[in-house]
Amino acid sequence: MAGNSIGRLFCVSTFGESHGVALGGVVDGCPAGLEISEADLQIDLDRRKPGQSRYTTQRREDDQIKILSGVFEGKTTGTSIGLLIENTDQRSQDYGKIKDVFRPGHGDYSYWHKYGVRDYRGGGRSSARETAIRVAAGAIAKKYLKQYHGIEVKACLSQLGPIKAEVIDWSEVENNLFFFPDSSKLDALDEYMRELKKSGDSIGAKVLVVATGVPVGLGEPVFDRLDAEIAHSLMSINAVKGVEIGDGFAVVEQKGSEHRDELTPQGFTSNHAGGTLAGISTGQDIIASIALKPTSSITIPGNSINTSNESVEMITKGRHDPCVGIRAIPIAEAMLAITLMDHLLRQRGQNPHVNLAHGPIPGSIK
Amino acid sequence: MAGNSIGRLFCVSTFGESHGVALGGVVDGCPAGLEISEADLQIDLDRRKPGQSRYTTQRREDDQIKILSGVFEGKTTGTSIGLLIENTDQRSQDYGKIKDVFRPGHGDYSYWHKYGVRDYRGGGRSSARETAIRVAAGAIAKKYLKQYHGIEVKACLSQLGPIKAEVIDWSEVENNLFFFPDSSKLDALDEYMRELKKSGDSIGAKVLVVATGVPVGLGEPVFDRLDAEIAHSLMSINAVKGVEIGDGFAVVEQKGSEHRDELTPQGFTSNHAGGTLAGISTGQDIIASIALKPTSSITIPGNSINTSNESVEMITKGRHDPCVGIRAIPIAEAMLAITLMDHLLRQRGQNPHVNLAHGPIPGSIK
Amino acid sequence: MAGNSIGRLFCVSTFGESHGVALGGVVDGCPAGLEISEADLQIDLDRRKPGQSRYTTQRREDDQIKILSGVFEGKTTGTSIGLLIENTDQRSQDYGKIKDVFRPGHGDYSYWHKYGVRDYRGGGRSSARETAIRVAAGAIAKKYLKQYHGIEVKACLSQLGPIKAEVIDWSEVENNLFFFPDSSKLDALDEYMRELKKSGDSIGAKVLVVATGVPVGLGEPVFDRLDAEIAHSLMSINAVKGVEIGDGFAVVEQKGSEHRDELTPQGFTSNHAGGTLAGISTGQDIIASIALKPTSSITIPGNSINTSNESVEMITKGRHDPCVGIRAIPIAEAMLAITLMDHLLRQRGQNPHVNLAHGPIPGSIK
Amino acid sequence: MAGNSIGRLFCVSTFGESHGVALGGVVDGCPAGLEISEADLQIDLDRRKPGQSRYTTQRREDDQIKILSGVFEGKTTGTSIGLLIENTDQRSQDYGKIKDVFRPGHGDYSYWHKYGVRDYRGGGRSSARETAIRVAAGAIAKKYLKQYHGIEVKACLSQLGPIKAEVIDWSEVENNLFFFPDSSKLDALDEYMRELKKSGDSIGAKVLVVATGVPVGLGEPVFDRLDAEIAHSLMSINAVKGVEIGDGFAVVEQKGSEHRDELTPQGFTSNHAGGTLAGISTGQDIIASIALKPTSSITIPGNSINTSNESVEMITKGRHDPCVGIRAIPIAEAMLAITLMDHLLRQRGQNPHVNLAHGPIPGSIK
Repeated sequence: MAGNSIGRLFCVSTFGESHGVALGGVVDGCPAGLEISEADLQIDLDRRKPGQSRYTTQRREDDQIKILSGVFEGKTTGTSIGLLIENTDQRSQDYGKIKDVFRPGHGDYSYWHKYGVRDYRGGGRSSARETAIRVAAGAIAKKYLKQYHGIEVKACLSQLGPIKAEVIDWSEVENNLFFFPDSSKLDALDEYMRELKKSGDSIGAKVLVVATGVPVGLGEPVFDRLDAEIAHSLMSINAVKGVEIGDGFAVVEQKGSEHRDELTPQGFTSNHAGGTLAGISTGQDIIASIALKPTSSITIPGNSINTSNESVEMITKGRHDPCVGIRAIPIAEAMLAITLMDHLLRQRGQNPHVNLAHGPIPGSIK
Repeated sequence: MAGNSIGRLFCVSTFGESHGVALGGVVDGCPAGLEISEADLQIDLDRRKPGQSRYTTQRREDDQIKILSGVFEGKTTGTSIGLLIENTDQRSQDYGKIKDVFRPGHGDYSYWHKYGVRDYRGGGRSSARETAIRVAAGAIAKKYLKQYHGIEVKACLSQLGPIKAEVIDWSEVENNLFFFPDSSKLDALDEYMRELKKSGDSIGAKVLVVATGVPVGLGEPVFDRLDAEIAHSLMSINAVKGVEIGDGFAVVEQKGSEHRDELTPQGFTSNHAGGTLAGISTGQDIIASIALKPTSSITIPGNSINTSNESVEMITKGRHDPCVGIRAIPIAEAMLAITLMDHLLRQRGQNPHVNLAHGPIPGSIK
Repeated sequence: MAGNSIGRLFCVSTFGESHGVALGGVVDGCPAGLEISEADLQIDLDRRKPGQSRYTTQRREDDQIKILSGVFEGKTTGTSIGLLIENTDQRSQDYGKIKDVFRPGHGDYSYWHKYGVRDYRGGGRSSARETAIRVAAGAIAKKYLKQYHGIEVKACLSQLGPIKAEVIDWSEVENNLFFFPDSSKLDALDEYMRELKKSGDSIGAKVLVVATGVPVGLGEPVFDRLDAEIAHSLMSINAVKGVEIGDGFAVVEQKGSEHRDELTPQGFTSNHAGGTLAGISTGQDIIASIALKPTSSITIPGNSINTSNESVEMITKGRHDPCVGIRAIPIAEAMLAITLMDHLLRQRGQNPHVNLAHGPIPGSIK
Repeated sequence: MAGNSIGRLFCVSTFGESHGVALGGVVDGCPAGLEISEADLQIDLDRRKPGQSRYTTQRREDDQIKILSGVFEGKTTGTSIGLLIENTDQRSQDYGKIKDVFRPGHGDYSYWHKYGVRDYRGGGRSSARETAIRVAAGAIAKKYLKQYHGIEVKACLSQLGPIKAEVIDWSEVENNLFFFPDSSKLDALDEYMRELKKSGDSIGAKVLVVATGVPVGLGEPVFDRLDAEIAHSLMSINAVKGVEIGDGFAVVEQKGSEHRDELTPQGFTSNHAGGTLAGISTGQDIIASIALKPTSSITIPGNSINTSNESVEMITKGRHDPCVGIRAIPIAEAMLAITLMDHLLRQRGQNPHVNLAHGPIPGSIK
């Protein structure tokens, strides 16, 4: 494949540009019999949707998802599911001026050199607008994982610039527009964002994504380890510059006696590993963190060049997110869900004779 | 594929267990005409080889590589290259005792639950011994990248436990047994490792891996971004718990005005991005870091369980690396090289009409 | 992937059911810079379109193709191309009666057992209506192959039931509604079809598909031979039960001295092989034939069962093609073009150093 | 992948040349727990082995298979299985003369043009000697299919040149060196082969390959239909020029009323389809036929050219099979078994919720 697909047995392909006619995709490999509706997908799309708060871009898109195939009488049929979102609030004219200019920190430069042509409207294919379809596909995976296996995938903003969550209170996450798990920091966040917006700058963020109820045995040896594929899928999200599993970079200064998760007949006593050993799930929570860079679409002037290799000064007007990490929450969930779903199907296909019931994790794959 | 292969056009498959007859693999997709010999591959294998210093495992393996096919009269023929390393210093009897026990922090538990059976000898397939074939395959990629495109891939140990390199002096890296780029810290490292060994414990590490001379345009949109595939291939290395591209997790606290790499007619003025924009190479150095956990094979007793779910106390005897990060240097190089090679072939296949010469990077893909 | 995609570097994924909202797909991997419009795709869609003659189904579908992404200012951008055709003339009520019945010779039985659920409307996903998107994708491949490499792909009906073409006159093919290359048989065909229709029965057919101008060197060793992948893509067309390359089944009675295509400095003296040797193209025409079964949708009663395993008598009303081979012409072209396109990109990616100019085939890959 | 691998979940990769050091491969994805030994694999290798009768090549190779990994204490562990056969009877000197010459009907010409270099010894990678590893991998699939699902795969020579089997008596097939199912023709075959050998020529053949006990539901929609993937895998066998499923090319002259397989509560009343409907298995026998061309390695002089494009006269000495169809029997079985195995794992992965027990096929996938 040329890059726009992910997954082996649960395979998601997407198409569409920021200011094109529509975004769309194909979810191939969803087992038959899952009850699914457009409303199920819309929930996560609405969580990701632009224009919802003063902290995110003011572009207004309904992001109304249509299921075009693969669902009959309310249930998946096992055949490929076509997804479509029509773009409604394109303002391509915003981009006429940057036609021949490479915005620093954007894909303009690399896309133009790679392809020799470029859809310059809002980043074209490299825009994070593309992730809407990922969120829709992820919602299918999430519903399946929960319904058939009790697996839940959830994410939150664990840090925004200098402001870290001191506690991870999942019950708070959906109560605020930052998806922040520490309500004691909400005022600080609000203040920080006001100042940031005033300055015309943007800020990075850290997102925590967790899956609970994951059975033992997901992930394949060596190259298709679960953690490696999670790293792949999370790093494929726009603006992500780092991925951690479990303790992540903290392990650099850990000793073996501290890091290793000990086992007792009642289960593991800690989860430094983040839910995988040798790349295969252990039945503990899958824990991953990602670092998202600050968007380069800011109103502070910056130096760049145009396609004639001449100096230009850039100021990005348009409508942009000052912290792309906020809207990344449902995207991170979607990507983790897609990867887990794929490995669940692969494990089933490859290891049907294993009676996982003898392991300490009840309710695992059958 | 079931997990033991990586790459689309340059595809590496491996087989073999720590204490089995042999390790081996197939490199499929190397272009015809590359001069290659077993000696070329042996160089990197010797850099990774166990038993070389007091800082690494005392297991002695020659790791003598054999090329079984795909090379004729000293040149690759374009057909699949068979690779083989016979194991010579297995001491399976070391492992009889752990037959029914899950060593904490190892793949024993997850493999057993995944497959229902387990080759308990030295971790079987989950042992890092498997990476020898990756290193051999990576050496083929490295030679090709350098010879045809001037791309060089190199790695070093940037941190071992609390000891960080303050400078990255690449000329020092091959002069010491730590592959450490800051010679002022060598005494401290030696002392640290002596103490560590005495305590019977192990320590984590951080490895920096860099590719220079990379042309613009490698990487595919959306899911097969170069950075996402690098994350995949680096996270697939045993013990890796985190991957960063460019500034990595530091971006969380960066502002957009600070992070975005500005452009001038003479090129980029910084490289916070680590060589990719929107997942596609920019022609700058590719920069990645990985975090490696401390090995769990330590002589300090730990709690675990056996296959009957009974408590046991574990002490890992055998021969082990107190810091697996050291020997990971050539492995990290190999994985980055394999991923770059794959994307070089993909870019050529997919974008033949692009004259990259108009870009600021001379000597790019033709 | 779960089955709805084909190709590695030029990858086509499709979705949609016979009586669903829409058919669609993704073409991933088309090189940037190709001028393409909806009109280019419509030409082949119109050749395949139902309701065009008294010899084909009376269902009326405009099959109006929409390009939703991947094309900007009239040229491909290298990113994924989204395709959509809305269904307009569904008559799902025609199918209410067969909800619980398996039509003999159709996918009803196998789909129902595979998935446990079934979209019974017109065969759902198993309907040949799905091939409309293949034809659209194939038109993109055909345009590219012709424009950049002078490769042309064409097909004709070489046999309909007992009536064989005695000559292959390509200039006749588009002059008649049978795509038949032997004009002397047109009256016989017309007569045969009248009688057939009267009887309520259907008939099989043979289609010849040829590619000219193919360079030497397409196809990969062993499993991804060009002929094997052509067999795959042609056999994936609905109703196809046999595929031949070159002389096909006639080779069973040939001797080596007769079959082998001899070489002279001026080129090959014959083409029994059909354009491949050891699975790799020789620069001669690629020649393939396929056998298409008679459709089972006929008005002659047949025995079948329902989902309760009770006997039922089936008469297929609805609107059907008495000879599906006729409309298969553009589909066969599309599938061959897609496979050639994929292998062209793969060959470029994998063998960039080969100067094919020294071979006897001018105008080959550069 | 670059061509030397087949299968998604049960994936076979091979390497090795006719006169290289060794042939080998990797079987990735065999479920854990299957009892398997080298002796199990040797049975089919011995059926394919050269030098066994006066009807096949006189090259003598033991074809002694070694299992290098993936099997522990007699059972598969779920990890990749390394396979190796050392070449012992190379006579590369036989080939020095053809170093610069393209043998007509062989891959010499296409390989040389594809890669620019060529291992000229006995066809190098394009030699059918490569199929030994396929047979070994196929033996693993066959054992699994039989043991866990009661699926059996068998093949026979249904026609050799003008001599057709009038009856298919499977009990005769292993009783003669032709694998011929009609014992009344054995004298004629013997006589025909004597004459053929005397003349220095070769002859084509037809092979029938059948799988019994196949459950309903194998095969994926649209592109990965079971029949399309069978066509792929069978056409990938050296010398194959045609593939039929069920009635194959006979369908061209069949009517729908004749072809469609009717259903009764007791099952299908015929099997014209060859065991698939809409590309998905029906639970009936899978029936396929392949046409194998006569080898071009004959002693009758033929015209060819050399790498300088000069005319040469070719006589192939060396040791060759006058009818390659004979030794293709175990190869055809292997390829069908590999494809069925892959689809069995895929079906399990993708459709776990389907209780196939309500179908008419007892003992199907659970």
